[in-house]
Amino acid sequence: MASFTSLAHPNIAMIKYWGNRDNTLRLPVNGSISMNLDGLFTRTTVNFSASFPAHKLTLNKRQILGPGLERVSYILNIVREMAGIKENAEVTTENNFPAGAGIASSAAAFAALALASSQAAGLNLKQDQLSRLARRGSGSASRSIPSGFVEWKMGQAEEDSYAISIAPPEHWDLTDCVAVVNAGHKKTGSTEGHALAGTSPLQNARVQDTARRLDICRQAILQKDFDALAHIIELDSDIMHSVMMTSNPPLMYWQPATLRVFQAVREWRASGLPVAYTVDAGANVHVITLREQSKMISKKLNELPGVKNVLTANVGGAARAA
Amino acid sequence: MASFTSLAHPNIAMIKYWGNRDNTLRLPVNGSISMNLDGLFTRTTVNFSASFPAHKLTLNKRQILGPGLERVSYILNIVREMAGIKENAEVTTENNFPAGAGIASSAAAFAALALASSQAAGLNLKQDQLSRLARRGSGSASRSIPSGFVEWKMGQAEEDSYAISIAPPEHWDLTDCVAVVNAGHKKTGSTEGHALAGTSPLQNARVQDTARRLDICRQAILQKDFDALAHIIELDSDIMHSVMMTSNPPLMYWQPATLRVFQAVREWRASGLPVAYTVDAGANVHVITLREQSKMISKKLNELPGVKNVLTANVGGAARAA
Repeated sequence: MASFTSLAHPNIAMIKYWGNRDNTLRLPVNGSISMNLDGLFTRTTVNFSASFPAHKLTLNKRQILGPGLERVSYILNIVREMAGIKENAEVTTENNFPAGAGIASSAAAFAALALASSQAAGLNLKQDQLSRLARRGSGSASRSIPSGFVEWKMGQAEEDSYAISIAPPEHWDLTDCVAVVNAGHKKTGSTEGHALAGTSPLQNARVQDTARRLDICRQAILQKDFDALAHIIELDSDIMHSVMMTSNPPLMYWQPATLRVFQAVREWRASGLPVAYTVDAGANVHVITLREQSKMISKKLNELPGVKNVLTANVGGAARAA
Repeated sequence: MASFTSLAHPNIAMIKYWGNRDNTLRLPVNGSISMNLDGLFTRTTVNFSASFPAHKLTLNKRQILGPGLERVSYILNIVREMAGIKENAEVTTENNFPAGAGIASSAAAFAALALASSQAAGLNLKQDQLSRLARRGSGSASRSIPSGFVEWKMGQAEEDSYAISIAPPEHWDLTDCVAVVNAGHKKTGSTEGHALAGTSPLQNARVQDTARRLDICRQAILQKDFDALAHIIELDSDIMHSVMMTSNPPLMYWQPATLRVFQAVREWRASGLPVAYTVDAGANVHVITLREQSKMISKKLNELPGVKNVLTANVGGAARAA
């Protein structure tokens, strides 16, 4: 049985995923759109061997037990069943971006795991199968399988809930400037958060309006219409955080500095700069801009009070062998 | 024709009014609940005289023309029609609280105007009629007519959309500590904001859930259940701001310091203090607490970075002769 090493990028959602219709299968209540983040990646090696007494997970050179190992084992066991094997696996994985840098790592992690584990088990899954497999580890991981600008179709069932590329990375030179703000509070994890989405009196309205927002966002990307993109991604981010903060218990991810970045972004756009904000389940602000403006925007973000540092990423490719 | 001087308190909404089903009559899309704010008031004197060439408005010793005079004239003309008179009026009004102190002045202003103008015109309107009249100048003014804790029933028509007292001021010793934060940006006025409410994809969900929130809030007041009150007023405030920030164009009233006060209030409540936040169409945070704790809470609020000053008010009475 071969060893296989894969690489996958994290992604930033432009139309957000929040809430599942099936928490175990991670079937979402709405479709979502994202772009992969080049330069940032998780690299994962998987070996299956009859000599391993159990699955083993090493993340950034430290062995992981407990819930982290269980979540990875869940995917490994699906892969074993698909491949008809019984061996245990050793998984060695590293991120080239720090924890707490404002980038969710689970998307890249489970995309890389889906590819490496299926290949190591002798499977040669197609992209839609890989996306579905990655989805079962982390919903947003389904979007880190295809290349560039990606849409995760919610589907009618398990079989058709996967992500596809809607445009390659070279289609549009966007850059994500991630303004990392001083978080101060530990956030509620996404898995737990998704389970709370339905407790907000606003979630149904959010879900029912999503097809409209997906259409606007998809068209803005295909037509490279920055202004349309800016308005829809800010609206979508604000709608998701509206649901979060009106959940029971409420999830308030924003910090004072988050609002300060929002204000700056709105002012810069009013003055003619191509900038728009979006925020995941955290306090850090992803400021989307054009690549040619990204150095200047990054510098301006760094000068805002409350911004600790700024990470930048262009549009990234598909999960692949490494 | 007699001169009449009235006094009315501003109020702070616990279940918010946001959006009209009729913008001219100011018939709301949902009912609301508030408490009047003692110690703060507008005092208004109205004279009708055949010798006045036109309506005249003097606010805080300065003559007002343009939209301010027009809005007052609209009420004066309704009163003239009700009374069957043709004289013009002089209106002299003063607030004992500064503009920009975090207290909306239009509720007290139009409640005082409704009472003074109708009495000066020789009418002796009942409370429900006064509340309806005040409503036509400013929706929330309908709630500054009755005493103490007040509910504005949305009604089926113009005739039954008015406010009633659900408990007198002495029912529950609550205090509103208003944390005034550095606003920095000019806000969109409420009248304009109400007209935008329907552009949010979340407004229908907010409206449809309002009867539930009204019931919880009314019961919390009647039973003096602070914890239940805290949860429902924070949820309701966050729901209204969710609608505001997802309107087209978006209305973001919160400032970084607004979130800082939210965080402090949540921490204080978690540590056992009776505190809850609510925010109107502005950046200032109304922190509701028990009167016996209000000095301590006011002091703690004053110590937060970004809080300029703190105003406190207990539960106030009805609009009345002064």
